[in-house]
Amino acid sequence: MSQLKNDLLLRALLRKPVERTPVWFMRQAGRYLPEYREIRKAAGGFMDLCRNPELACKVTVQPLRRFPLDAAILFSDILTVPDAMGLGLYFEAGEGPRFERPVHTAADIRKLAKPDPEQDLGYVMQAIRVIREELDGQVPLIGFAGSPWTVATYAVEGGSSKNFPRIKGMLYEQPAMLHKLMEKLTGATIDYLNAQIDAGVQAVMVFDTWGGTLSPAAYKEFSLRYMQQICASLVREKDGQTIPVILFTKGAGSRLADMVDTGCDALGVDWTTDLADARKLTGDRVALQGNLDPSILYAGPAAIRKEVEKVLASYGHGPGHVFNLGHGIHPEVDPANVAAMVSAVHDLSPTWHQEAAAR
Amino acid sequence: MSQLKNDLLLRALLRKPVERTPVWFMRQAGRYLPEYREIRKAAGGFMDLCRNPELACKVTVQPLRRFPLDAAILFSDILTVPDAMGLGLYFEAGEGPRFERPVHTAADIRKLAKPDPEQDLGYVMQAIRVIREELDGQVPLIGFAGSPWTVATYAVEGGSSKNFPRIKGMLYEQPAMLHKLMEKLTGATIDYLNAQIDAGVQAVMVFDTWGGTLSPAAYKEFSLRYMQQICASLVREKDGQTIPVILFTKGAGSRLADMVDTGCDALGVDWTTDLADARKLTGDRVALQGNLDPSILYAGPAAIRKEVEKVLASYGHGPGHVFNLGHGIHPEVDPANVAAMVSAVHDLSPTWHQEAAAR
Repeated sequence: MSQLKNDLLLRALLRKPVERTPVWFMRQAGRYLPEYREIRKAAGGFMDLCRNPELACKVTVQPLRRFPLDAAILFSDILTVPDAMGLGLYFEAGEGPRFERPVHTAADIRKLAKPDPEQDLGYVMQAIRVIREELDGQVPLIGFAGSPWTVATYAVEGGSSKNFPRIKGMLYEQPAMLHKLMEKLTGATIDYLNAQIDAGVQAVMVFDTWGGTLSPAAYKEFSLRYMQQICASLVREKDGQTIPVILFTKGAGSRLADMVDTGCDALGVDWTTDLADARKLTGDRVALQGNLDPSILYAGPAAIRKEVEKVLASYGHGPGHVFNLGHGIHPEVDPANVAAMVSAVHDLSPTWHQEAAAR
Repeated sequence: MSQLKNDLLLRALLRKPVERTPVWFMRQAGRYLPEYREIRKAAGGFMDLCRNPELACKVTVQPLRRFPLDAAILFSDILTVPDAMGLGLYFEAGEGPRFERPVHTAADIRKLAKPDPEQDLGYVMQAIRVIREELDGQVPLIGFAGSPWTVATYAVEGGSSKNFPRIKGMLYEQPAMLHKLMEKLTGATIDYLNAQIDAGVQAVMVFDTWGGTLSPAAYKEFSLRYMQQICASLVREKDGQTIPVILFTKGAGSRLADMVDTGCDALGVDWTTDLADARKLTGDRVALQGNLDPSILYAGPAAIRKEVEKVLASYGHGPGHVFNLGHGIHPEVDPANVAAMVSAVHDLSPTWHQEAAAR
């Protein structure tokens, strides 16, 4: 493996000094890029991209050709794991992801396969190897998985959901049964992320998109607890390098304080919490990643620059900040505005690290 | 006007002692009730119900015939105000509300009419009078409006939205222009709510469904500030009775602390914040209304009772709690589960008020 030429992200995630704030974006590879839409169109469906290591590599590196970003993130989906467990993932036009065989009963849970990542999710591991080769040490590669709770919502509802009728019914009516499902999903997720680390990802992120829809008590019992198990079970070092773990619960708010105790290295913060407040809640025990409102990209470069400045100031001085949006880039956004956002971070962030650099 | 026979809600909203916790639900009149669906089907569209005072009265009182609730809430919609301002509200099957003439430019804002509530929204005022007559003092009637920010999102986007591209673009690119819109919406909302009070509503609630999608700074500038103007401009007394004002921002979280300073009497709390935390944040300066996860109604009576108990315990002893869901009742819910929830509040809440009653 070639030497990493830009380790800003890894240093920031471990709260080590940096010269400027590293920057990458959730969904930085995706539909807002015309070159992505072109490949996607030629490939057919979304999963055809994910399942083809060469194409997955191509779209993973596309945003790096345009913008001086400090990380690549594996192009894949959080539902590869339940698919490999036997649920039959498919995508319906305009409908989002669906499962042929959703999980409704104890028998459904018993039937779930325990995937062997190298065999059943080999296309992901192969993509990681191809991407690492292609990146050639330019920037680190981030791997990821969905949180067990978030994946469970799709597995039980059979697809996307607004009110989560089936899984919330199960949570309050048959909590022991739901815990059985959570345990299986957690085990599969741990194996999957460890295999990603083994294949070459240099940091991992767990996306808990729907944890914020739970009451605080249910969140601790059904989402946080299983993310903690993941943190405790991941291989945290590879080739002498620490592999940082980032947790992201959308809408976490004051739950950030509890999330610190999972043993993660960094927390993603959405735009509804100020980074200054997030920093107070987490007491500088972890790095923070975020948190511009992705809808700011509907405005133009001057307005974007002003808001980037505010995010940097809200975090304040010192290490431990990774610049990101508070959620994924929206598909309708103009890439020129993304460029403006990256430039603003490059231009404006060094001043917030001068003290650290002088030490 | 007949004497109010059950003033539990009004006492609780003003933090006065009560014998048990009053209970009502957002969307207590609605699609989960078969008798609602029947009237709705006969009437045609949703707005045909709202615009017909007799039908609006019928559906307003339907849940009171089934459950021993402590309040009625006017059956209407938050988009009656922008409709009266000239935007042309209509509903498309499966699409939700839409406007024929959304607000995109400064000229669009200048053209907005200033509605005369008794003339342009007379159907609402007439519905209030008919409902008060029908209720005959059984329970108080709550009036409501959308928050200016929430109404603005529909006015600018032309309907429901997920990412709010147009209004967030406007917020960051043309904030002065957006403030002009907010001022007009706020003025119309104040007139509308004061007319509702004059027509007979005994409490008012402002629904800020989308304030929680703003960053904390944008929330203060574009949502909270205008709700504060509303609180400052409402007629707060009628016939010797105080008219309590309830504000509800979905996803408010720690913003509850700022919301207290608006001068409202009570805050709605969604299920993602514990009432104990909400009480700490607000320092017993206002009453709190909430906050069972509406998806708990997908479980059965025993599970529901357990969760009602937890909400009551989370609020704890003393006055100032109005039991409600953290958001509206979902349409697929079994009315028997709603009955179980109401019974649980009746059965379990008196113990939390015994101290107060003994004083």
